[in-house]
Amino acid sequence: MHGQFRIGAKLVSSQETFVARAAADGSDLPGAFSISSAADVAEACALADLAFDPFRETAPALRAAFLDRIAERLAANGAEIIARAMAESGLPQPRLTGELGRTCGQLRLFATVVREGDWAGATLEPALPARQPLPRPDLRLRRIAIGPVAVFGASNFPLAFSVAGGDTAAALAAGCPVIARAHPAHPGTSLLAAEAIAGAVADLGLPEGVFSLIQGPDHALGAALVADPRMAAVGFTGSRSGGLALMAIAAARPVPIPVFAEMSSINPVILMPHRLAEAGIALAQGFVGSLSMGAGQFCTNPGLVLAVDGPDLAAFVAEAGTALASVPAQTMLHGGIAAAYRSGLARLDNAAGVDTLARGVAGSDACGQAALHVVSARTFLANPALAHENFGPSSLVVRCADAAELHTVLAALEGQLTATLHLADKDLPLAAELLPLLERKAGRILVNGWPTGVEVCRTMVHGGPFPATSDARTTSVGALAIDRFLRPVCYQAFPDALLPAALQDSNPLNLPRRQFT
Amino acid sequence: MHGQFRIGAKLVSSQETFVARAAADGSDLPGAFSISSAADVAEACALADLAFDPFRETAPALRAAFLDRIAERLAANGAEIIARAMAESGLPQPRLTGELGRTCGQLRLFATVVREGDWAGATLEPALPARQPLPRPDLRLRRIAIGPVAVFGASNFPLAFSVAGGDTAAALAAGCPVIARAHPAHPGTSLLAAEAIAGAVADLGLPEGVFSLIQGPDHALGAALVADPRMAAVGFTGSRSGGLALMAIAAARPVPIPVFAEMSSINPVILMPHRLAEAGIALAQGFVGSLSMGAGQFCTNPGLVLAVDGPDLAAFVAEAGTALASVPAQTMLHGGIAAAYRSGLARLDNAAGVDTLARGVAGSDACGQAALHVVSARTFLANPALAHENFGPSSLVVRCADAAELHTVLAALEGQLTATLHLADKDLPLAAELLPLLERKAGRILVNGWPTGVEVCRTMVHGGPFPATSDARTTSVGALAIDRFLRPVCYQAFPDALLPAALQDSNPLNLPRRQFT
Repeated sequence: MHGQFRIGAKLVSSQETFVARAAADGSDLPGAFSISSAADVAEACALADLAFDPFRETAPALRAAFLDRIAERLAANGAEIIARAMAESGLPQPRLTGELGRTCGQLRLFATVVREGDWAGATLEPALPARQPLPRPDLRLRRIAIGPVAVFGASNFPLAFSVAGGDTAAALAAGCPVIARAHPAHPGTSLLAAEAIAGAVADLGLPEGVFSLIQGPDHALGAALVADPRMAAVGFTGSRSGGLALMAIAAARPVPIPVFAEMSSINPVILMPHRLAEAGIALAQGFVGSLSMGAGQFCTNPGLVLAVDGPDLAAFVAEAGTALASVPAQTMLHGGIAAAYRSGLARLDNAAGVDTLARGVAGSDACGQAALHVVSARTFLANPALAHENFGPSSLVVRCADAAELHTVLAALEGQLTATLHLADKDLPLAAELLPLLERKAGRILVNGWPTGVEVCRTMVHGGPFPATSDARTTSVGALAIDRFLRPVCYQAFPDALLPAALQDSNPLNLPRRQFT
Repeated sequence: MHGQFRIGAKLVSSQETFVARAAADGSDLPGAFSISSAADVAEACALADLAFDPFRETAPALRAAFLDRIAERLAANGAEIIARAMAESGLPQPRLTGELGRTCGQLRLFATVVREGDWAGATLEPALPARQPLPRPDLRLRRIAIGPVAVFGASNFPLAFSVAGGDTAAALAAGCPVIARAHPAHPGTSLLAAEAIAGAVADLGLPEGVFSLIQGPDHALGAALVADPRMAAVGFTGSRSGGLALMAIAAARPVPIPVFAEMSSINPVILMPHRLAEAGIALAQGFVGSLSMGAGQFCTNPGLVLAVDGPDLAAFVAEAGTALASVPAQTMLHGGIAAAYRSGLARLDNAAGVDTLARGVAGSDACGQAALHVVSARTFLANPALAHENFGPSSLVVRCADAAELHTVLAALEGQLTATLHLADKDLPLAAELLPLLERKAGRILVNGWPTGVEVCRTMVHGGPFPATSDARTTSVGALAIDRFLRPVCYQAFPDALLPAALQDSNPLNLPRRQFT
């Protein structure tokens, strides 16, 4: 593990270095990682700016081949990548094997999207020279890449939401050079993913500035990247405080830029009365499975359960408590996350009116112990801190007096990535009443499923109103994620020879185009 | 003219009032306009919030009929509206007749867009129960309205960019209730436009909160509207300082919201060497026509001309000066704009290295006197203030030593709504070289035309990088403007009965839908 970061094709060392620590025990892992300086950031940004015009005009087929090649290279080096990611993140092999598959799948999905060409939004309105009172000029529209994009790796998905993750795939697909800021908790994994991208850049003969990787333990590094005048947008998945900090930097620039931050969500799950009555036990088991999977370190973890109080809810809670008690302690992503989780649990334990219902098996300080708490709707509504995300395998059951109070609790929630309804046919009228409120609150609404497990597809929305994300009009997972990095340009009365290929009369790129009269 | 503002169906009076002033001479116009208080704003926002869920779920056919009805009502009251707008804005009758036609045309375009249904982005991915290793649930996506929208009327388009203007049309088309904040320079025109919308709300039996109009002379009114937690987005056309102020308020909210502000642009026009040689005189005449039209009070006014210095540019400049000298003084929109324009001209007159080439006919203090200045590229680059918009019939010719210096000047410009190339066939190679830079700088690029005159159509982009707008990924004119006010929602494993009509199996709304396997 060479430990160098990367400015385009160049590997760079620094005097000072930092190390990665094993999630399981905090021990140093192999590799001394060089730390990017402000000057390095500026150099990467300059290269990205230089690469921007040629890269955004690459033919869709070439860009698609590039994305496919990154996937191939990741898969080819899968064993090494997974081993390193296991050590750095503490996530188990099957999970990371799945995550690598998903990461490759995302890249291939965007390759398909780029080939299909709808992303270009090519639209033609021919001249109407005889129109009265004024002729109409020939007008054509396409979407172009927005500019170089800063991608911040997330700690909880060292592959799928990190250096070669969804934000990078979407930005590259749009034609934007990417500068990835590695998450300092997994610098080795980041480096290996970066090698796959840089290798694909070289394989396809693309400008080197299409991709750079910067590394370092300090927040100042990311701040410098977002503040650089050559950056045009930011993709981020992480904490609310981290996302808000980047949004503030981006808004304060002389030229503000969009930050697509996915930040915080407790993903309410509503157990509707008839469904709770008919399947409470099964629901409890499914719930605990979703809650504890991956040590609860998913953006879509079900951190809040709402139901009308009564014997059915009591049975659910009892069964969930039993199931949870045998959930093994799991290594969390890094010591900071484990400590923050423990503090969050302590706050819940000590919060007035909150009952500790169950705990999973205890483990070392590196581990997250599953936990379930119960509270009345009244107490929940009186204490907004109870609605804050506690990242890890913890959830809070809110007992509502009736459907009206359940509605009140939902209405009081902040924006969410997901909302889930567990319902029987007889619950449909109440579900239909709640739906408009759920649509206002969340980017994805599920029926009779669990919010963990995000399908990477055409219809996925991994987004939602603030603070789930900084911009509810977008998604960070799925084909629509490319829209974040494109902007429309109108070409008026252009001679065919000057038009970009996407809009020339002969349609040399064979793009799908809309034509109006 | 009753002078009351409007909270839904209710007309409201206040103790204190303000008056509209004639643009031509500052005299009081008929009508005492009530001033909306903070409590009125809150009441309008509460009504909008109440109307949001039912309005966003109206059938497209109903929403389209509503937009058409607004257009009908505006057209039916056209004589009164135009007369009032003439008095308040000083704009001449033919211009306002055209603008009213455009306003109605915008509403009708959005009616068509709503009927066509592409805006909903309905997309279906059926369940794959047998997929390995995991089944895929049924997933469906549609776009829904973002929430109540605050629309700020612009002074320079009292109809097309004001109460019933493009932002309102796009927001209503998306299914968003609108609270219009009338521009205080044309409260009577605003009131008449609001009557048309409120009349259409009643005609179609829509919830009254779909539309409110607030009035008042103070900035605090708009600030309160943007800060209200029930508002979800802002549409604004106006000054850079005004737009930045709203962006700051929106970003500082507990829940930040998007501001779509169209602010500032000097719309560079590049006269390429061969075209300048073959048609310099005609170009000069066309240029002066575009520059002085409507007293230069267009967002797309050609405020900057770039060319390589030499005898052809000298001939253009001489002819432009001659043509400009006979441009009559024209009443500006209000005293504040006329005064700001005069100050801007004085700054240009006194700027080191800037030559005053010509002045149009002088007029009263209410008028804008056309003006043309000339400067070397070197001086222009050394003094960034020379690139600031001076709203009115003023333009600055920048003499460049060669094509490289022209490129340097372009690269130094801020974001623009438009950029224009005047070219002959022999200029194509140089134009092709400049194009990537122009694409980075502007939302619309024109060949051999003038940027004033914005077609309302499918392919129009009236947007562009900051500070032309706050979000280059959108447009405020044309069919794509609806995208600003929509957000995607994913429905996972919904029973058909619970799905919104847009996504039900039988497609009862007959929307265009994409289906993937």
